Amino acid sequence: MTRVLHLNAFLMSTGHHEASWRLPESDPHASTDIEHFKALARTAERGTFDSLFLADGPVLWGGVAQRPAGVLEPLTLLTVLAATTEHIGLIATASTTYNSPYNLARRFASLDHVSGGRAGWNIVTTAGGAAARNFGLDDAPEHAHRYERAAEFTEVALKLWDSWEDDVFIGDKDLGVWGDDRKIHPPHHQGRYFSVEGALNIPRSPQGYPLLVQAGSSEDGKDFAARYAEAVFTAQQTLAEAQAFYRDLKGRTLALGRDPEGIKILPGLVPVIGSTEAEARERDAELEELITYEHGQRRLAELLQIPFEQLDLDARLPADLPPPALINGAQSRYELVVELARRDKLTVRELIGRLGGGRGHRTFAGTPEQVADQIEIWFTDGAADGFNIMPPVLPSGLELFVDEVVPILRRRGLFRTEYVPGETLRDRYGLPRPEAGRAQLTNMNADIKIGSQA
Amino acid sequence: MTRVLHLNAFLMSTGHHEASWRLPESDPHASTDIEHFKALARTAERGTFDSLFLADGPVLWGGVAQRPAGVLEPLTLLTVLAATTEHIGLIATASTTYNSPYNLARRFASLDHVSGGRAGWNIVTTAGGAAARNFGLDDAPEHAHRYERAAEFTEVALKLWDSWEDDVFIGDKDLGVWGDDRKIHPPHHQGRYFSVEGALNIPRSPQGYPLLVQAGSSEDGKDFAARYAEAVFTAQQTLAEAQAFYRDLKGRTLALGRDPEGIKILPGLVPVIGSTEAEARERDAELEELITYEHGQRRLAELLQIPFEQLDLDARLPADLPPPALINGAQSRYELVVELARRDKLTVRELIGRLGGGRGHRTFAGTPEQVADQIEIWFTDGAADGFNIMPPVLPSGLELFVDEVVPILRRRGLFRTEYVPGETLRDRYGLPRPEAGRAQLTNMNADIKIGSQA
Repeated sequence: MTRVLHLNAFLMSTGHHEASWRLPESDPHASTDIEHFKALARTAERGTFDSLFLADGPVLWGGVAQRPAGVLEPLTLLTVLAATTEHIGLIATASTTYNSPYNLARRFASLDHVSGGRAGWNIVTTAGGAAARNFGLDDAPEHAHRYERAAEFTEVALKLWDSWEDDVFIGDKDLGVWGDDRKIHPPHHQGRYFSVEGALNIPRSPQGYPLLVQAGSSEDGKDFAARYAEAVFTAQQTLAEAQAFYRDLKGRTLALGRDPEGIKILPGLVPVIGSTEAEARERDAELEELITYEHGQRRLAELLQIPFEQLDLDARLPADLPPPALINGAQSRYELVVELARRDKLTVRELIGRLGGGRGHRTFAGTPEQVADQIEIWFTDGAADGFNIMPPVLPSGLELFVDEVVPILRRRGLFRTEYVPGETLRDRYGLPRPEAGRAQLTNMNADIKIGSQA
Repeated sequence: MTRVLHLNAFLMSTGHHEASWRLPESDPHASTDIEHFKALARTAERGTFDSLFLADGPVLWGGVAQRPAGVLEPLTLLTVLAATTEHIGLIATASTTYNSPYNLARRFASLDHVSGGRAGWNIVTTAGGAAARNFGLDDAPEHAHRYERAAEFTEVALKLWDSWEDDVFIGDKDLGVWGDDRKIHPPHHQGRYFSVEGALNIPRSPQGYPLLVQAGSSEDGKDFAARYAEAVFTAQQTLAEAQAFYRDLKGRTLALGRDPEGIKILPGLVPVIGSTEAEARERDAELEELITYEHGQRRLAELLQIPFEQLDLDARLPADLPPPALINGAQSRYELVVELARRDKLTVRELIGRLGGGRGHRTFAGTPEQVADQIEIWFTDGAADGFNIMPPVLPSGLELFVDEVVPILRRRGLFRTEYVPGETLRDRYGLPRPEAGRAQLTNMNADIKIGSQA
């Protein structure tokens, strides 16, 4: 079988460029307009994308003054899109720190049922004190503890998804016997973070489990991904960095006895597309000019965990920033941003400009051919199994990608031309449907401790 | 304005009669078949019902042997129906004991956005130890504490829904100003059960709040309803009991300074419809014969909180049952069932037969005219503002009701003949859209303590 690209459409209100809402054509209410998202989903499905993806954090961060604020809750939004699309996968971000396993496992199983096996879960631990304070905590738990909790949360979720065998149903109407209680396996889970006694109250879903996705690239994050993830979203600025990450993560996965083919690595890509290279660069510059630097400064100060006043727009980053391992926030994003600023000797203003496009994800401006070339190079040179496509402006950026770049990828034999009818998201990733009971087994053999400081 | 009935369609797999799945025409997989629910929703919308309703408990209770088990999570299911219907309200049950306010308020606001203002929340506290053990507890919190928590949960949810004023949006693209931070009001809530600091991360929804619904009829439940509910589902076996409940609850509502018109009371009704009275009764008897008594015995023992062995099918209920106030479960259902058994001098077997139809809700077997008569009598004689319609068999029972009973109610001028375009669920209930900030006010004036033992 030829290796085929995986393309995921990362949806976001008016686009991934933080200034996109200021363009004349952008709808500043897009983030809560369900018709906007239905149209995006139709476009992505026309482009035979593997899946749609929504990020999430249970917090209104940074106020409403300088960018469109307020979003539809991802599982709700993707459930609507389940009803208005036929084939495309539906990947929702949900936090292991601010949910309970029983409720969340139910919701993903339900989405998997109503979508005919198209659900995916991007497992996040949620950094930041503001979110913590919406859930009765003073601050976010430590990075390592968040990941330890995430691992136990995931184990419990797997047990819950395994709590119904596939053939529970008997359905003898004459005798009045609906199902076989011997095929129900309550987790009886007693752990450090969770106690969950009973079986899920929903039969095993078409995929068994949703596709398990992970997106943090810290040490804890990579260990977690190697253990559980089937797809990984990651921010990588250069081919060399992406190759190193790819090798590292596939190696960690193999070391845990998993098939490295069973974990697909999808770097983010912000494609700024023009009919000429000059037009694309102009488009990029236009967007950069619309950036509100005060907002960028606030975001950067939050990420770096330093006071706003320490960031001088026309100077470099402070020299005395702590190493990433001491940051109790988004460690890998922190590392990437500091690295980028130092490597390219950027002022804070320039750094904010560079981050405006995709918050640390790689922006590439060029013609459709050039974008396709970049994708092909990374895909064939051991840097990516596919891409998390983050159009800078929506809906136009996704339309351009589907109409101009996808046909090139198809002509090159890198990407599918149609969906396989009835295929689940797992099928599309070449993953087998897990057998009920695997989770119990995994857990019994669990000698890998997640959580570097645990 | 003429007073118009409110009709809610209470959806439930193959129907509300517990033996309904054993009928030849019933689909034993209905409870997870999204097409089944889409068809029910279309039927209810054809009948211009006010709303659809789903019960819920986060637990697989009583195994899978004797009845269809496993359900789609209600908010997920209703979100699909939001996408496939246009007018009908969507009322989901969700627990205040096993959720966090920030997550749940977000989800209801999201459903309200994607449905154009059709969301309703049936607020429940969730009885029973089995559910508790899925969420890290050994047993359910005490009845009074559950209601105290429910009150605080609701207050926090109201504050969150009020955390965005309606006119946050400025949208000055030239200046790069999206919204007005002064119109964001973080709850800063510090209470006994919850601390929730920040504003919701979704703009105020079309209805402001979802319609607030309540369904328990214990003393705590009635106090809670009088304070917060805008619609109440209740189980009432006789006209006299229903009238007493109606007077009581409207009185409590008035005593709290609320308009009694602002709380609509909808008793459950299980209509067994035949073209003659005899045919209807025969249908009822047929269903009763299919009841699995062992399953009924287990459910009854759980409700009464006594060992299974104390229930002799051919004897009356034990004489020494405790008073309802000492039951840490579903107090009002307990009271109703014991009362019904004693009043009608039923054996356990007969009681199970009577409960099989609607778990304590009133079953009425008759012709469409007779069903309409019952509805009219209760509606005009101070017992009901409408009904929670619980067809014993689905989809046929809902189709019969819509095709045979609704036209009679319309001819009598009791029920709408069409929807008002663009109407929200609140509009349909004659309720104003709440002004942002009402919740803060309510809270400041809160001199009513919910929780009889607090």
